[in-house]
Amino acid sequence: MRFCEWRVLIDKYRGADMDALKLDTVRLSEDRSCLEILDQTLLPGTIKVLRIEKLEEIYEAIRFLRVRGAPAIGVCAAYGIALTASRIETQDYEAFLAAFREQKKVLASSRPTAVNLFWALDRMERVLLAQAGRPVDEIKECLFVEAQAIRDEDVAISRSIGEIGFGLMKPGNGILTHCNAGTLATAKYGTATAPMYVALEHGMTDFRVYCDETRPLLQGARLTAFELHGAGIDTTLICDNMASTVMKSGLVDLIFVGCDRVAANGDTANKIGTSGVAVLAKHYGIPFYVCAPGSTIDMSLAAGDQIPIEEREASEVTEMWYKERMAPEGVKVYNPAFDVTDHSLITGIITEKGLCRAPYEKAFRALGIE
Amino acid sequence: MRFCEWRVLIDKYRGADMDALKLDTVRLSEDRSCLEILDQTLLPGTIKVLRIEKLEEIYEAIRFLRVRGAPAIGVCAAYGIALTASRIETQDYEAFLAAFREQKKVLASSRPTAVNLFWALDRMERVLLAQAGRPVDEIKECLFVEAQAIRDEDVAISRSIGEIGFGLMKPGNGILTHCNAGTLATAKYGTATAPMYVALEHGMTDFRVYCDETRPLLQGARLTAFELHGAGIDTTLICDNMASTVMKSGLVDLIFVGCDRVAANGDTANKIGTSGVAVLAKHYGIPFYVCAPGSTIDMSLAAGDQIPIEEREASEVTEMWYKERMAPEGVKVYNPAFDVTDHSLITGIITEKGLCRAPYEKAFRALGIE
Repeated sequence: MRFCEWRVLIDKYRGADMDALKLDTVRLSEDRSCLEILDQTLLPGTIKVLRIEKLEEIYEAIRFLRVRGAPAIGVCAAYGIALTASRIETQDYEAFLAAFREQKKVLASSRPTAVNLFWALDRMERVLLAQAGRPVDEIKECLFVEAQAIRDEDVAISRSIGEIGFGLMKPGNGILTHCNAGTLATAKYGTATAPMYVALEHGMTDFRVYCDETRPLLQGARLTAFELHGAGIDTTLICDNMASTVMKSGLVDLIFVGCDRVAANGDTANKIGTSGVAVLAKHYGIPFYVCAPGSTIDMSLAAGDQIPIEEREASEVTEMWYKERMAPEGVKVYNPAFDVTDHSLITGIITEKGLCRAPYEKAFRALGIE
Repeated sequence: MRFCEWRVLIDKYRGADMDALKLDTVRLSEDRSCLEILDQTLLPGTIKVLRIEKLEEIYEAIRFLRVRGAPAIGVCAAYGIALTASRIETQDYEAFLAAFREQKKVLASSRPTAVNLFWALDRMERVLLAQAGRPVDEIKECLFVEAQAIRDEDVAISRSIGEIGFGLMKPGNGILTHCNAGTLATAKYGTATAPMYVALEHGMTDFRVYCDETRPLLQGARLTAFELHGAGIDTTLICDNMASTVMKSGLVDLIFVGCDRVAANGDTANKIGTSGVAVLAKHYGIPFYVCAPGSTIDMSLAAGDQIPIEEREASEVTEMWYKERMAPEGVKVYNPAFDVTDHSLITGIITEKGLCRAPYEKAFRALGIE
């Protein structure tokens, strides 16, 4: 595996002229010889881009969370299979299809529960099937085009969410966010961070962001604080339990969070702690917005209690510390990765098609989300 | 400094027959030759008792938080000065008083903002002044008696709070607590934990406790989970941001927290995050009780906004991690050590003299707290 350091490149983007695109999570190299991915496992201490090209390298990057965030994983898989398929040495369509499917199987096994991964790989396969009988070289080209389209669509969705969210911001606002629904989790702009980056593009720099550190895995501290601070945004890191006092002090005017899955009634599953932020927001009278690409809205679920919540290992809570574990051996730990925020606590759900307000099911259907 | 390991001793107390007294934060050795203090800086990984006797050793133990928690510091200072004064080699009262005051000055400088420290040392000095003219050896004896009285009173206060809190518990209850207002912070029983230990003494073991880990310094994970788990109580550690989902799931019936200072109207300053727990409790309809020794109620303050809040170093939030810092260099950090919980969020304030309900000022005065 080859590495290249780009710390200097990043430094260039501190300040108002920062372009979030330059923090590309995943991109195809200009000569199409490899993928360039920002290794998120090393953040925030080291900014390193891995150049990867082999199937095993792409599998490993997804599997070990070097690329993370559902949209970013989808883009990585799409580019990845376009790249590896381009190196299949045959002119025979059937042989090409068989080899493609072998590659697809490998990549699909990298994160068994990542819906966007399967979605992107299936979409790539449909291209191949639709072009059956055409020369293999032309099909290879179509795969690159489709991967690029998946990326471009993701950027467009984020940008649209960002424009709508930006419309809710006023100069001087304090904004609070939880976890990382940032450019690092998508192709560009993120979801919860999209309004902030769009604000920069519109020349508005007069706002402050409070990042919950987001225990246990610290995505807020490691990723969100990193990307916003690097973009020149006035960023303050807080521990999760400080959100109440920050809101009470009048420092927060607006809250944007991302989501993993939204039920038809607007109940929203997102990173653990989101529901607590929403309760605090309601208590202190602060608008609380969920930034939700239409693909995360699952109209087949009536309410949030039907969303299964992943429970993760205790060691995420008790270890990772400097000297030694920070909790007694043997104590029980409850470590849910997500929680569900009741729709009654949500001021609005921002999709790329528009801003939805309660009743959500009706609002989603009015936008054509079925 | 001499050390003694007592891990084996602690293991004996796992289970229903645990006696919280055996986790003594500070005690005088039976032969009065030294203080035995549990070194809290090493918890939860190492259970070590330091035997200390010299003035510098006692100063160091308080200064470097080996003993912590306002009541425990007061008890340590009282025993400490009784011990060091007993070694002053003079039979002359004036010379004894002068030497005592030198020792007092040293100990008082160990934690410049610890109110209980000055209070305990002043109380010890008053004994010495009240006995002016009596033989020095008799005065030395009176100092030991007074230190013991300070400890016994602290235990009685905690036990009384515990009995009242126990009266609010029902078998099978889930209880949530924040930070460490435990036996480790007092002479025995703690304040927020006192109802739980008193429950054990009454033979009730059928309850569960959820401990917020309490970022940034993790007193909940390192201390509360340690002492409750060691006492055989069904203890589950959670990250602070999981409190909402635990409450929403119906796992919490009752909340007990400690406090640092209570204003006349009931507004309560306590460890950062307490106000957030109170907002969640109100939202989910869960009773939220503050356990407050009468000495923490400051009737000279009309409301909580008059309580100054200590802001601590950013490194507490960004460092302490296994490999490296977990937030980008240069990002701003807001790290308040305490927050104020509005009296409207508090179901009741439990003092050693009785349970107070709103309006708090009237309730405090009715109990003779002025």
